[in-house]
Amino acid sequence: MKHGAGGRSMRRLIERVFLHGATGPAAAMDDGAVIPIGDHFLIVTTDSHVIHPLVFPGGDIGRLSVAGTVNDLAMMGATEPLGLTCGAIVEEGFPVVELERLHASARAACEEAGTSIVAGDTKVMRRGEVDGLVLNTTGVGLAARVVRDSGLRAGDVIIVTGTIGDHGMAVMAARHAFDFGADLRSDVAPLNGLIRAALAAGGDAIHAMKDPTRGGVASALHEMADKSRVGVVLDESALPMRPAVRAAADLLGIDPLFIANEGKALIGVHPDAVLAVMAALRAHRYGRDAAVIGRCVEQSQHALVLDTGFGRRIVSEPDGELLPRIC
Amino acid sequence: MKHGAGGRSMRRLIERVFLHGATGPAAAMDDGAVIPIGDHFLIVTTDSHVIHPLVFPGGDIGRLSVAGTVNDLAMMGATEPLGLTCGAIVEEGFPVVELERLHASARAACEEAGTSIVAGDTKVMRRGEVDGLVLNTTGVGLAARVVRDSGLRAGDVIIVTGTIGDHGMAVMAARHAFDFGADLRSDVAPLNGLIRAALAAGGDAIHAMKDPTRGGVASALHEMADKSRVGVVLDESALPMRPAVRAAADLLGIDPLFIANEGKALIGVHPDAVLAVMAALRAHRYGRDAAVIGRCVEQSQHALVLDTGFGRRIVSEPDGELLPRIC
Repeated sequence: MKHGAGGRSMRRLIERVFLHGATGPAAAMDDGAVIPIGDHFLIVTTDSHVIHPLVFPGGDIGRLSVAGTVNDLAMMGATEPLGLTCGAIVEEGFPVVELERLHASARAACEEAGTSIVAGDTKVMRRGEVDGLVLNTTGVGLAARVVRDSGLRAGDVIIVTGTIGDHGMAVMAARHAFDFGADLRSDVAPLNGLIRAALAAGGDAIHAMKDPTRGGVASALHEMADKSRVGVVLDESALPMRPAVRAAADLLGIDPLFIANEGKALIGVHPDAVLAVMAALRAHRYGRDAAVIGRCVEQSQHALVLDTGFGRRIVSEPDGELLPRIC
Repeated sequence: MKHGAGGRSMRRLIERVFLHGATGPAAAMDDGAVIPIGDHFLIVTTDSHVIHPLVFPGGDIGRLSVAGTVNDLAMMGATEPLGLTCGAIVEEGFPVVELERLHASARAACEEAGTSIVAGDTKVMRRGEVDGLVLNTTGVGLAARVVRDSGLRAGDVIIVTGTIGDHGMAVMAARHAFDFGADLRSDVAPLNGLIRAALAAGGDAIHAMKDPTRGGVASALHEMADKSRVGVVLDESALPMRPAVRAAADLLGIDPLFIANEGKALIGVHPDAVLAVMAALRAHRYGRDAAVIGRCVEQSQHALVLDTGFGRRIVSEPDGELLPRIC
């Protein structure tokens, strides 16, 4: 299971199996591929969703699928998706009304993102061959400039666009019927509007973006730092977190840095543009809790270090199975 | 299960759930979406593959995924795919060497088709949550002219690019360990080279194309005829079929018209261009057994009629579960 958890084992599996012999667009191991078309770039991303339960506080697999794909496109600079495809794999006997409800949710998320599902495919598997419903969404979009997750430079400031840990905590609470009150809700949302605003404000000073989904902020920053050949120092006291998430994480002994988000972005930006980008983010409904959480330093032995205020602690790259089927 | 079998129930499910409220590129219910970009058209198609067994005579799920997506693009006129994405959903404990082998097969099919897998995603599910391996492939390609499956006109000639029923029969024999000798092999192949040759020879005289996968030639022609508002009369004696497929179909009491193909296309062409298109097809390794199998007539009560030589028989649209998990 750890090969699917978004951490080191998964990265190694991908390198071993899927990138073997790969050249061209896939070799960068970005979340999406880049194909030049004229003077623009076609961005193509794909994601499968196996989340359990299918409906959780704040969202469902339909909204999650659309938001996940819209966000992968947006992180690379394609903030106006041309369209999404949706492949559904359905367990025999799955209620059609439930399928309709989830598809309506996907469609609503598309509308919010200003896009639509342009092609679909449905397969049915027997009971016991697939658990409920799996959705695959693939998105295509055009970008004038491609933003990479490998573009961080020493001196850059790291911004997170809002509170961390909401999605993973909400799903965990829903799955195990933990009662932490009503405050645990997934943050799942299409971020292309937010990112469009940030790019308009920051322009070329935005050097790198990534959404901290599986593996959380820690995994995403590890990957960004490794690929960019810089180190990242995080300021623990600056990490925005809802009290309910902090309380649940404390109670369960889980580091919020490792918990999945589905409506947040990490943005690496040149210091000169931080104020403009922060202002743009905070003016948007999905960016009200945006915060500067760290900065990039010259590459050293440890890619990710947390400044706790009392000292520094190395944050390792997550590995193994923290929480399966989170997205 | 019949909702996934490619016939009438599936079409109704798609209309009820997935096209509810759909407008724009998806509303045509084609196998792919069409998005205008400059003076070209971006074609986007998606397909999930749940085939069992994963390896079968003549192919495997890797080759099947790539060929299926390349063919969906080619049928709409995009014979030079820009790239494919591949989303893998893997059962916990699935052997990594097997994954490597299947991925190598997918890569080889990509090379044959002159394209590559440009983005990927992997999810792992627990034992019992998914059966082995499911692959979703999405493809993007540019077409100067879009060919629709709804473009048939009365008077058009229907060509099939080779023998029918090979894929479905090979999978059925492999699954049930029927011994029909060594001659049952899937036809799974990327057809973009073949279709490129046909389009070069036939030009605008090629009015419609579709690959007869799930539901076979009967289902594909029903859909083409319905959408095009014509009738199709098939000449039974002209249907190309390997003796082993014919024998197996006879023995099992299955109509070969309903058996899936994964390396064949149906082409509707103006009579004036038939010779040129047939010559181009037969000059290609995947078109050597191409045959004229029918013609289009004015729309009447029955979309698809089979001329048996002794009389005519109505071919109904397949419905229900002929053979699940065939692709």
